[in-house]
Amino acid sequence: MTATLVDRIGELVTNEPGGAEPLGIRRDVALVAVDGRVAWIGPAGSAPACDTHVDAGGRAVIPGFVDSHTHLVFAGDRSGEFAARMAGEPYTGGGIRRTVATTRAAPDTELAANLAYLQRELVRQGTTTFECKSGYGLDVEQEARQLRAARTVTPETTFLGAHVVPAEYEGRADEYVELVCGPMLDACAPHARWVDAFCERGAFDADQCRAVLTAGARRGLLPRLHGNQLGPGPGVALALELGAASVDHCTYLSDADVDGLSTSDTVATLLPGVEFSTRSPYPPARRLLDAGATVAIATDCNPGSSFTSSMAFCLALAVREMRLTPAEALWSATAGGAAALRRDDVGTLTTGARADLVVLDAPTYLHLAYRPGVPLVHTVVSGGEIAYRQEM
Amino acid sequence: MTATLVDRIGELVTNEPGGAEPLGIRRDVALVAVDGRVAWIGPAGSAPACDTHVDAGGRAVIPGFVDSHTHLVFAGDRSGEFAARMAGEPYTGGGIRRTVATTRAAPDTELAANLAYLQRELVRQGTTTFECKSGYGLDVEQEARQLRAARTVTPETTFLGAHVVPAEYEGRADEYVELVCGPMLDACAPHARWVDAFCERGAFDADQCRAVLTAGARRGLLPRLHGNQLGPGPGVALALELGAASVDHCTYLSDADVDGLSTSDTVATLLPGVEFSTRSPYPPARRLLDAGATVAIATDCNPGSSFTSSMAFCLALAVREMRLTPAEALWSATAGGAAALRRDDVGTLTTGARADLVVLDAPTYLHLAYRPGVPLVHTVVSGGEIAYRQEM
Ligand SMILES: [Zn+2]
Ligand SMILES: [Zn+2]
Repeated sequence: MTATLVDRIGELVTNEPGGAEPLGIRRDVALVAVDGRVAWIGPAGSAPACDTHVDAGGRAVIPGFVDSHTHLVFAGDRSGEFAARMAGEPYTGGGIRRTVATTRAAPDTELAANLAYLQRELVRQGTTTFECKSGYGLDVEQEARQLRAARTVTPETTFLGAHVVPAEYEGRADEYVELVCGPMLDACAPHARWVDAFCERGAFDADQCRAVLTAGARRGLLPRLHGNQLGPGPGVALALELGAASVDHCTYLSDADVDGLSTSDTVATLLPGVEFSTRSPYPPARRLLDAGATVAIATDCNPGSSFTSSMAFCLALAVREMRLTPAEALWSATAGGAAALRRDDVGTLTTGARADLVVLDAPTYLHLAYRPGVPLVHTVVSGGEIAYRQEM
Repeated sequence: MTATLVDRIGELVTNEPGGAEPLGIRRDVALVAVDGRVAWIGPAGSAPACDTHVDAGGRAVIPGFVDSHTHLVFAGDRSGEFAARMAGEPYTGGGIRRTVATTRAAPDTELAANLAYLQRELVRQGTTTFECKSGYGLDVEQEARQLRAARTVTPETTFLGAHVVPAEYEGRADEYVELVCGPMLDACAPHARWVDAFCERGAFDADQCRAVLTAGARRGLLPRLHGNQLGPGPGVALALELGAASVDHCTYLSDADVDGLSTSDTVATLLPGVEFSTRSPYPPARRLLDAGATVAIATDCNPGSSFTSSMAFCLALAVREMRLTPAEALWSATAGGAAALRRDDVGTLTTGARADLVVLDAPTYLHLAYRPGVPLVHTVVSGGEIAYRQEM
């Protein structure tokens, strides 16, 4: 049995509903983790002694960020494409094929090194749970290779064979979907928890996405969907029809989409890093929240449309650009992400939850939006173990 | 004599004009610093051995950021005011008096600790030169105390007694300006290099600012000015009239303002963190650049309108929101800041310059905008000495 004490917590965000303050905030407490779980929260003075001690020194402590949408298994750099876009070229998703080509050509060791590097980067920024998709392989062997790599860094792996139609299937999307639903799924299902598809003009239509998600479900994979990013479309409706855990992007929504999301448990996952990095309009987050939908925030970390791994940055954008309150934004980046991954053991800090937490170098979580761009992560505890400490 | 070798630099941003690439980029080089200055730049293989060695490992190296506008000497937290503003309250600058009250009440030790904390935060984010203003004291003793504190962390100290009219002079602005130009300046001039004033409706008018800057100049202080932040106004014209090194904010500019800036050596310093954190329109940076004005980017780090200390974040905003190219934004955040501080020893990496540099955890400077919010500082060298290394 290993026990870790985090004491002198000035402000503890528990995300427990029903408290007197938003986010279930408790003040001047200590927290004990035993065997990786939160075992005790109580007054600062009365905590038991433990093997490991983290002195929060009056700082704020939040649940580790839950980044429910990333594409981290890739090779190659698209900073030149980014610069061209900033100079006026529109984003169409066409660059995905560029990453597919460089990723296919990269040896396993290069993919693993890049993935380990990004994983470390996420942890340093306070992300303790993250999802990771395939989708830069787009053939049987390469998609399976991507998911095997992803599995080494997270249990939340997503099969995204239906990311785009690869160049060699140009004009034969239905044939490609057959491949995805058949041999590719056979090879990938053992390494994935989720199945996903990119439901968008220029990628896959609703019937094609339905086929992929349904085939995945028959193999025990849970559905989630990219939808309504570049224009209005059938993505949200399809996600609701299939009971997807989440529909991601949600930039262009009809009234029916908002209504449907507000009465379902499908999470609307918003990815403001994409809108920042493609200079696009932001999703209508207030409409969703005011209607009662569950909203998550994630990075969509990928080399094309959003190469940020910073949940804090996305949270600050959510406040500035989408008018979430700082409390709503933090909830969406922690408990909201957990809901989008159908996880009840992360995103909160209550007894029994995983001891995944971030000591902020700040007296209150408000600083995450108040101090945009500043690395405010002081200490990261993951599963009760210290995963990162800021250099002094 | 101490010598430091930085080798295996994949991309070196020198900011030397006239090269084949923007930013005077050189590839696959090494750099040697002797006694705090750049002594040699040459092919990677042929560098001499040195006492200290930094292996850039193929990464990009840029000049340290020059943050030419900060207000770091203060006490108190205004995150609640920030949250209220994000919920719809307009920014009027009225909160400055709140910080004045908490700062006046804080002991020297608290001011020094806060300042040391923020200085460390800046260095960790790659800022190797920064300006620091007074302006939260607003009486003779308190302003001098602020500047004495600022002098301990930077030579670029600015007397900003004319920040706002303090509560006790309400309705008697001219009397307060007399105090600023007389006893306050006497007490402050020995600790300052610069004199500044806040030329804005609600703060000081052009005549009052002219009086302050002229009195400062008589005491050997160099003029700079806050102007045209909250609306059109006489700030830019006054800065040009007085030959100020910089006029800062420049959010609302007339054609005459742009023309004047384009034909003078007064730098237009843009502070996009303010517009981000007050949800205000961004300054017309493209108009300035296209007209030929010299543009600097700085953080305006302060607890009210922009509590970011991240030059990289401001650079990413400059690209996304003000349509600077990534190269223009980096130049403005380094050489531009140096111009705004009339410094020719920082902001560039050429022989004879201060050896102030940042090894980025990235293959190219483009990542500063391509990867918004991500802490990309790998190693910081200041005056030839290693000032920060990223935890591995
Ligand atoms: Zn995605
Ligand atoms: Zn200022």
